[in-house]
Amino acid sequence: MEFQKFAVLGGGSWATAIVKMLCENLDEVCWYMRNSDAIDYIHEHGHNPNYLTSVSFDTAKLSLTDEIDQAISYADVLIFAIPSAFLEAELSKIHVKLKGKTIFSAIKGIVPESGKIVGEHFHDNYDIPFKDIGVITGPCHAEEVALERLSYLTIACADPKKAEQVASALRSSYIKTKVSKDIIGTEYAAMLKNIYAIAAGIAHGLGYGDNFQSVLMSNAIREMKRYTKRLYNIDRNINHSAYLGDLLVTGYSIFSRNRMFGNMIGKGYTVKSAMMEMNMVAEGYYAVSSAYKIKEDFEKKVKTPIIDAVYEVLYQNKNPKKVFARLADRIS
Amino acid sequence: MEFQKFAVLGGGSWATAIVKMLCENLDEVCWYMRNSDAIDYIHEHGHNPNYLTSVSFDTAKLSLTDEIDQAISYADVLIFAIPSAFLEAELSKIHVKLKGKTIFSAIKGIVPESGKIVGEHFHDNYDIPFKDIGVITGPCHAEEVALERLSYLTIACADPKKAEQVASALRSSYIKTKVSKDIIGTEYAAMLKNIYAIAAGIAHGLGYGDNFQSVLMSNAIREMKRYTKRLYNIDRNINHSAYLGDLLVTGYSIFSRNRMFGNMIGKGYTVKSAMMEMNMVAEGYYAVSSAYKIKEDFEKKVKTPIIDAVYEVLYQNKNPKKVFARLADRIS
Repeated sequence: MEFQKFAVLGGGSWATAIVKMLCENLDEVCWYMRNSDAIDYIHEHGHNPNYLTSVSFDTAKLSLTDEIDQAISYADVLIFAIPSAFLEAELSKIHVKLKGKTIFSAIKGIVPESGKIVGEHFHDNYDIPFKDIGVITGPCHAEEVALERLSYLTIACADPKKAEQVASALRSSYIKTKVSKDIIGTEYAAMLKNIYAIAAGIAHGLGYGDNFQSVLMSNAIREMKRYTKRLYNIDRNINHSAYLGDLLVTGYSIFSRNRMFGNMIGKGYTVKSAMMEMNMVAEGYYAVSSAYKIKEDFEKKVKTPIIDAVYEVLYQNKNPKKVFARLADRIS
Repeated sequence: MEFQKFAVLGGGSWATAIVKMLCENLDEVCWYMRNSDAIDYIHEHGHNPNYLTSVSFDTAKLSLTDEIDQAISYADVLIFAIPSAFLEAELSKIHVKLKGKTIFSAIKGIVPESGKIVGEHFHDNYDIPFKDIGVITGPCHAEEVALERLSYLTIACADPKKAEQVASALRSSYIKTKVSKDIIGTEYAAMLKNIYAIAAGIAHGLGYGDNFQSVLMSNAIREMKRYTKRLYNIDRNINHSAYLGDLLVTGYSIFSRNRMFGNMIGKGYTVKSAMMEMNMVAEGYYAVSSAYKIKEDFEKKVKTPIIDAVYEVLYQNKNPKKVFARLADRIS
């Protein structure tokens, strides 16, 4: 297969995993990150000093740069893997033309500045047509890609040829890929699951057990189905890996930052102290504010007891114990 | 509410949990178990010496007996919580009339002698009409009932009044109940999930990670949907707690015997040595043989890659590594 030119934007673990996957197929991958010390380190040692340090790269294949314009100019296909909270700051540095590029988001979350999912953000704020926008989604922990443990990715794009181009570049002996046209549903699902992971964490922090957790997840997938159906009503099997699988890999992961954040809230930390303790912001924190506002604007109301509960705890300062006791009555 | 007379049959952890739940509402519960030493111990100390030892009973409420006929004669509603492998041996001891009683199964599995789920076994072999047969299903680990952690039960019966009678007797501050008419679907789901837990264990034993596990569970629920639809095609939301919740609480539990058994198989144990090592038989071992045969007889074929894989490993002596590599290609 003839491959287009790919650039990966981001220096974190998911960006590192994507570069690794692409290097299985491409002769050259452009890799942008802000941290020029990390770039020097990778040149010298062949691995990222900060994330997935066990992954060795053939540096001859890497075209590393700390100039985002260079990466944009180089590539036909741009894969963004920058945390959503920092995306807009990075995009503001761009002075070359973005339009005409194929833009794939490997980011799961809401852009805080616009309150939108990444695909919509590129479409509405950067005038990128939806046919040029795609999503790469799991279920996929980057750490398992590093170990070459078999993982499945879903590549969604309105243009099936572009989805297939990206899927072909990513798949390998340890990566299976599936293409989808559901860019809205997959991206919202990836965002919503972080809210449900916070809910799972809060429940755990409050002392609820595995029986409740399984009921919570079974309600979460039904809530996700209702929510995504109202947003974009296409024929969608919510139990496919990109939706249910992605929910499970996060909701049941004790390493999930969102779950950990929720757990601290359930144990009695305030939002502020939990964030300070974790020294980072859980993506689901922004996500729930947007998800709540978006659904309040739905013409036809949708029942979202779990989103409501997380919103009430994180933004309305309500008592988690009381809120979850009421949630327990609203789910079944 | 006016309650009928209840008897619980079985001395294990699930039977103990059910007696505890009933004692929240009833003035008297008849409790049959084979082990008369355990009965003496409960009389004296107020708790089961072997299972859920932390649960204290008000012995004034318990009518304990090691004579199964006594329990049958006493009760209007019989709740069977005997492992399916021992059910037939117990039933053969009965010399009083079973017909006319309401019989609820809290057993998850196939009766080895008949290859049938418990409800069908009572119906076909003991001539009990379906209107008198019901199912109590989770997601529910008995250990969490002992701790009074909030749990949800589904009570299924063709006769909604009987379902409601049993649900009322079981619900309390820590038990929420839901009634259903889907006795076939809930009971098969409870049986199939043990097979999927074995599959999860085999995958783990072979070195597959959490990414694969989430894809496996997402495929398992779709397979369960296809399977139960073919068996009994009613309007069923497979993502309800009785189906998806029950799958998750077992598939993600590291304490699940079925998952543990699968894990040993994945690590290279033979079926025989895994059983000897565990000193017990995982229910899913019988279940997969029956589930496989039952679906082979379906008029319209149904795709069951996970059941097939577990069957091939456990009964056709095929190499787990190869079988699961092929399974990984069949799921998505």
